[in-house]
Amino acid sequence: MLSFESDYIQGAHSSILHRLCETNLEPLVSYGGDKYSLSAKSKIKALCKREDAQVFLLTGGTQTNQIVIDTMLHDTEGVVCANTGHINGHESGAIEYTGHKVITVEHKHGKVNANDVSRLLFDFYSDENHEHVVFPGMVYVSHPTEYGTLYSLNELESLSAVCKEYDIPLYLDGARLGYGLMSNGTDVTLEDIARLCDVFYIGGTKVGALCGEAVVFTHNNAPKRFFSSIKQHGALLAKGRVLGVQFDTLFTDDLYFKISRHAIEMADMMRKAFAQKGYKFFIETITNQIFVVLDNEKLEQLKDQVSFGFWEKLDDNHTVVRFASSWATTIDDVNALISVL
Amino acid sequence: MLSFESDYIQGAHSSILHRLCETNLEPLVSYGGDKYSLSAKSKIKALCKREDAQVFLLTGGTQTNQIVIDTMLHDTEGVVCANTGHINGHESGAIEYTGHKVITVEHKHGKVNANDVSRLLFDFYSDENHEHVVFPGMVYVSHPTEYGTLYSLNELESLSAVCKEYDIPLYLDGARLGYGLMSNGTDVTLEDIARLCDVFYIGGTKVGALCGEAVVFTHNNAPKRFFSSIKQHGALLAKGRVLGVQFDTLFTDDLYFKISRHAIEMADMMRKAFAQKGYKFFIETITNQIFVVLDNEKLEQLKDQVSFGFWEKLDDNHTVVRFASSWATTIDDVNALISVL
Amino acid sequence: MLSFESDYIQGAHSSILHRLCETNLEPLVSYGGDKYSLSAKSKIKALCKREDAQVFLLTGGTQTNQIVIDTMLHDTEGVVCANTGHINGHESGAIEYTGHKVITVEHKHGKVNANDVSRLLFDFYSDENHEHVVFPGMVYVSHPTEYGTLYSLNELESLSAVCKEYDIPLYLDGARLGYGLMSNGTDVTLEDIARLCDVFYIGGTKVGALCGEAVVFTHNNAPKRFFSSIKQHGALLAKGRVLGVQFDTLFTDDLYFKISRHAIEMADMMRKAFAQKGYKFFIETITNQIFVVLDNEKLEQLKDQVSFGFWEKLDDNHTVVRFASSWATTIDDVNALISVL
Amino acid sequence: MLSFESDYIQGAHSSILHRLCETNLEPLVSYGGDKYSLSAKSKIKALCKREDAQVFLLTGGTQTNQIVIDTMLHDTEGVVCANTGHINGHESGAIEYTGHKVITVEHKHGKVNANDVSRLLFDFYSDENHEHVVFPGMVYVSHPTEYGTLYSLNELESLSAVCKEYDIPLYLDGARLGYGLMSNGTDVTLEDIARLCDVFYIGGTKVGALCGEAVVFTHNNAPKRFFSSIKQHGALLAKGRVLGVQFDTLFTDDLYFKISRHAIEMADMMRKAFAQKGYKFFIETITNQIFVVLDNEKLEQLKDQVSFGFWEKLDDNHTVVRFASSWATTIDDVNALISVL
Repeated sequence: MLSFESDYIQGAHSSILHRLCETNLEPLVSYGGDKYSLSAKSKIKALCKREDAQVFLLTGGTQTNQIVIDTMLHDTEGVVCANTGHINGHESGAIEYTGHKVITVEHKHGKVNANDVSRLLFDFYSDENHEHVVFPGMVYVSHPTEYGTLYSLNELESLSAVCKEYDIPLYLDGARLGYGLMSNGTDVTLEDIARLCDVFYIGGTKVGALCGEAVVFTHNNAPKRFFSSIKQHGALLAKGRVLGVQFDTLFTDDLYFKISRHAIEMADMMRKAFAQKGYKFFIETITNQIFVVLDNEKLEQLKDQVSFGFWEKLDDNHTVVRFASSWATTIDDVNALISVL
Repeated sequence: MLSFESDYIQGAHSSILHRLCETNLEPLVSYGGDKYSLSAKSKIKALCKREDAQVFLLTGGTQTNQIVIDTMLHDTEGVVCANTGHINGHESGAIEYTGHKVITVEHKHGKVNANDVSRLLFDFYSDENHEHVVFPGMVYVSHPTEYGTLYSLNELESLSAVCKEYDIPLYLDGARLGYGLMSNGTDVTLEDIARLCDVFYIGGTKVGALCGEAVVFTHNNAPKRFFSSIKQHGALLAKGRVLGVQFDTLFTDDLYFKISRHAIEMADMMRKAFAQKGYKFFIETITNQIFVVLDNEKLEQLKDQVSFGFWEKLDDNHTVVRFASSWATTIDDVNALISVL
Repeated sequence: MLSFESDYIQGAHSSILHRLCETNLEPLVSYGGDKYSLSAKSKIKALCKREDAQVFLLTGGTQTNQIVIDTMLHDTEGVVCANTGHINGHESGAIEYTGHKVITVEHKHGKVNANDVSRLLFDFYSDENHEHVVFPGMVYVSHPTEYGTLYSLNELESLSAVCKEYDIPLYLDGARLGYGLMSNGTDVTLEDIARLCDVFYIGGTKVGALCGEAVVFTHNNAPKRFFSSIKQHGALLAKGRVLGVQFDTLFTDDLYFKISRHAIEMADMMRKAFAQKGYKFFIETITNQIFVVLDNEKLEQLKDQVSFGFWEKLDDNHTVVRFASSWATTIDDVNALISVL
Repeated sequence: MLSFESDYIQGAHSSILHRLCETNLEPLVSYGGDKYSLSAKSKIKALCKREDAQVFLLTGGTQTNQIVIDTMLHDTEGVVCANTGHINGHESGAIEYTGHKVITVEHKHGKVNANDVSRLLFDFYSDENHEHVVFPGMVYVSHPTEYGTLYSLNELESLSAVCKEYDIPLYLDGARLGYGLMSNGTDVTLEDIARLCDVFYIGGTKVGALCGEAVVFTHNNAPKRFFSSIKQHGALLAKGRVLGVQFDTLFTDDLYFKISRHAIEMADMMRKAFAQKGYKFFIETITNQIFVVLDNEKLEQLKDQVSFGFWEKLDDNHTVVRFASSWATTIDDVNALISVL
């Protein structure tokens, strides 16, 4: 069975496993103070070109969203995001669990529009009874989005400008950041993100690591006692090395970017093949996720040969499904897929 | 520098790394539905001799305590534990963060005494105003305790009896469970724990894994929608295989018990040497943790040659320190330690 | 200045004050065990024609919503309501503060449509990944709604049927319940509500009391230890008599219904006058709230003579404002209002 | 039956009821912006002699403790109090419900000792692993305490000095503040409290009001968006006048102090009578609460003639009970009590 259902069906890039083995018996400081964690953080800061950035390594995406949002928001604040945002629909209420409302705006191709945010904030502060309403205290975007789409530099700059105008942080969920940065059509760089966002994370779990996300506070703005908050949320690993070694490896010799680029190349091959064979796309994407509309017959035929992700039922006769490439997808995998399309 | 400060200064047992590498490229179901997770759970159930046990794999100890306690308690309930309990003093308030009080009883060698719990429960229900008080809704014990001590079978049975009398669950934190089970002086088996406790966890992080704890609900008593609660607490790994492969390896060919036994043997050698050289023990232990009282001069002399854990200042001239062995401690390490004592 | 901005600008009905004075020095049991609280609860149960109803007296509406929703929902659940629902937009996130998501459906005249709820529930359970999503665990409606509209009996029955089908409670926020029950156009009685809802509250604050809301669990379904939960939420009054005497008075000699009816009559006079003088209604209502569209000129002219509630800006030249009658509105007030329209 | 079981068995002082009736039909701004609330706050500020004080009116004691503590503490912080503190034992976990640990020190006659707090803070910051521990972020004292005892000025100054040294707020729970200030033996004034504490509340519920507590932040240090936080905790009354009129009346013509003084005089009479008749006191108090040790026989005999509060069982043959006077206790009541002792 060919497997294209997600970008987390395999383990870690071999270099990561290699380094975990190599460093395994070294006695290291616990709770993230080890030299590999420090090195990883230092490399990430350098890549971001932000001297005043602060980097923390966490284990998973929902955990990261929960901790970042909870610690950056005041108790009276909620987080603004697209109605399609991961925090709104697929994290079992992890944000609300910490006491914060998720305030939605209607997505445009999975994205938050700066004008919509601007209007929401303007209306909020225009309402003389706004002290009875949850304060919009942060804007959350994902890049790539849940629909595999990307913000343009111009769109990110507009969002950043709105956030600055209202003095609230802009947070970018980069669970698949590598696949966004290495896409052919993007004009957004890691430096841009580090310049425009107040906080973001570089996803490891979906980009070559066993687990792990690197949170970057971009201008010395990590919340007070963030280390203790991590512990309080149950997210502090005793063996911080597990994350440190992985991210140190990912950011050595551009590994993170190379394997992301590879996934994009595989996705581009797949996209081309889908198009040539007459498949309809549900949405145009340039990252590692491809959303295809299948009719029932095709769906039945394909699902015995290849596994893919169910996205949504479009109508009685059509279903949207997702094919994802990843750092681990091989040309042979892609060719095999093409042969059954 | 010799390293004895804790049992989490090194990575994972080589068999675990080996299996992670071997299985790395297999496409597997995510979120814990993979065959290795299922196999691990199945092996653990078999070892517990509880057909109706339910096993879940989580990442760390504080995370596990937080989720288990939060999901098993009613909102009006708190958890009873020793004042020395890990959840009371070393988890940054992770339990209170979820809304639950930690209700303490005075420890006896790090342990909770069944009579104390019985009296607390009796007094609580005797108080006609107890509806204004936090309900004691669970008893938490750690085994080994934070002081490296162990409950006897008789003590556990008494605690279990009190809990049953008041119909509240008994929860055992087994962060270092292997070192307890393999201690020479214990009369408590894994089966006993599975029989007497309502829920407990088998620690992986401190016993040979990179990370991971296996929670066992012993009689089909996992809280409603426990999977969703794990997600909501930010604790669900996309690549559940990371935990599955590790625990499957730990419970293949008795690896967990063998490496725990090894650590005990190393600790016994160390204990003997400390005693022979006239060191005073702060508390008698039979597990992998040894608490020694050092005077200031000795402390200064040793700390340049060996790293150990600071425990507490006893008086102006004496300090309690901890030496821990682990699955990774070698005889050479121990001999080197002995030579500098 | 004439005052029509809300139904809580004056104190309490004179009968309530009279009874508070009369009973003032009687020594009474505290925390709601007093005879007036018991009598009030008994009268409410009788009116509901539910032998197995359980009644609790709380102080305010947001408090009531917070406690009822928090105690009835499982941690993994959220509450479904109209996007215009009070809990969604005007309670400073009191629901999310307790860890629960407010799941919105698009309102129809301020109301939740049973078909929309049915579809939401069907889609939720059809989604194979729904364990990663907040469970819809309750339906919240307000009656009258925030727009002053009312559910028909048929609409309530449909909502109740959907809730029963999915085994989730239907909760009715009756902050202004009296004004709904006494409206000319309604076919919904208190008995209907008690039969169709799992829990609802009878608003006192806006219907003649100084403060106070009476929560009715309709079929012996009060959450476990609800009393302790009230205390835990900081909502237990030491002098429960304050609420007991008020509700006992409101439900003696039909006072609650009589004063509600009076408010409706006043509103009907106002509605007629607005219509006759050519004012446009923003929405048709039959309760004590009237939403009128004013152009800027009229707005400026009126606001010096009468106070009303700002609702929303419709466009650059028009504003929606609210005029509310209440138990305390006199015919003289209404005539004075009419004379300035 | 004579009633001495608590200071909240009766309604409100007649002047309060009188003013509620007098002002009843005035249309007033809601949510605490009414002139009576403003006047009450202004009077309280003047009495405190703190130009920069900020006053808020809430409904009950547990509610007040919950909101003040939750909004003043950082998420990583807990509140230090005596193990006998009301927040520790009698508020159903209202503090932990908001995510904060209650950190206890052993009481001395119901009081917190400054040296104990100093040592706790010193030890906390001396612990190199304190980032894994809940930060002590506030000191809570009650005055009078739950045992009816009072802090001396010197004791309060010492506590204040420790708090200032560690830069954490000192919070005084004045549920019965009037009875403390008007006690014969105290050297603490309202001005002292306003000078030494960062926040405190003046209890109304137990000192002549139907309900209500006035929170005073003493130096322009009210938490950010405190109004919205009150709403979020479900504690904002629509008819703020209910609290405003009550506190405005209590602080007109020294009513609060006069009725408190009266209660003290009644208690002094009772104390004298108990002593003369050979009753043993459980603890010496100089406020309105008297703790007496009764043997079983006396207990049985008295309880048919007078109601008193059960405090605790001392041994098989003795019980501690509480007799409380209040603003409403009459000389006739006291004489009747004395006649049955």
